[in-house]
Amino acid sequence: MEDCIFCKIIKGDIPSTKVYEDEDVLAFLDIAPVNVGHTLIVPKEHFRNALMTPDDKIMDIFKVGKKIAEALRANGAEGINITLNNERASGQTVFHTHLHIIPRFENDGHNPWNQKSYKDNEAGEVARKIIAKL
Amino acid sequence: MEDCIFCKIIKGDIPSTKVYEDEDVLAFLDIAPVNVGHTLIVPKEHFRNALMTPDDKIMDIFKVGKKIAEALRANGAEGINITLNNERASGQTVFHTHLHIIPRFENDGHNPWNQKSYKDNEAGEVARKIIAKL
Repeated sequence: MEDCIFCKIIKGDIPSTKVYEDEDVLAFLDIAPVNVGHTLIVPKEHFRNALMTPDDKIMDIFKVGKKIAEALRANGAEGINITLNNERASGQTVFHTHLHIIPRFENDGHNPWNQKSYKDNEAGEVARKIIAKL
Repeated sequence: MEDCIFCKIIKGDIPSTKVYEDEDVLAFLDIAPVNVGHTLIVPKEHFRNALMTPDDKIMDIFKVGKKIAEALRANGAEGINITLNNERASGQTVFHTHLHIIPRFENDGHNPWNQKSYKDNEAGEVARKIIAKL
């Protein structure tokens, strides 16, 4: 896709620090890592986000992501976040599907989300609304 | 697994607010949601985390997660985080594989991670260390 920065990285028009490449998938370091070694895995074909990506392509990037996660663990990571952000409100900034593989360490200072709790019958009501759309 | 809270939820020994169930997969609301509707999708078979779960089981929970993400979108979510945390350092607190489907909204105040940047030749060096373990 013409204006997509990840398509340009895949084509080689923009440089990246690659860690893995095959016919369908490219993996490269995030230039703004949460922790050193934070890697992005992308399908070479352009899709806007994970919800719009065929399941077999998700599996392709997941399998590569798992290998990279294991490599990061072998290099000392104590935990791994595997994340797909979908749409701007979720934190997605490049609209080409990418799987984040994030090496984590005890007390590295990252605290993804503040959790809430449900009131009284609220959870049942919320579940009914989800089930109604499945 | 005897001491696993999610195995107990699957067995019905601990109550949960279910949104989906089939032979292999259960989906229920996280009791401490990041946002209302935050759902966990678990394989009924016990595995410690995603890195220790067979790919076909990951695909099972991902497919259910995608449907739930679409239901949450239909109910107004502006974005969706799809996340697998692996080991305590990553934020995993229950050691039974679970896929987080998190509805997100513009300006909901969640800021997952603080990003860093690489110095000079640091990125190439980091990539080499990952590649060496692949």
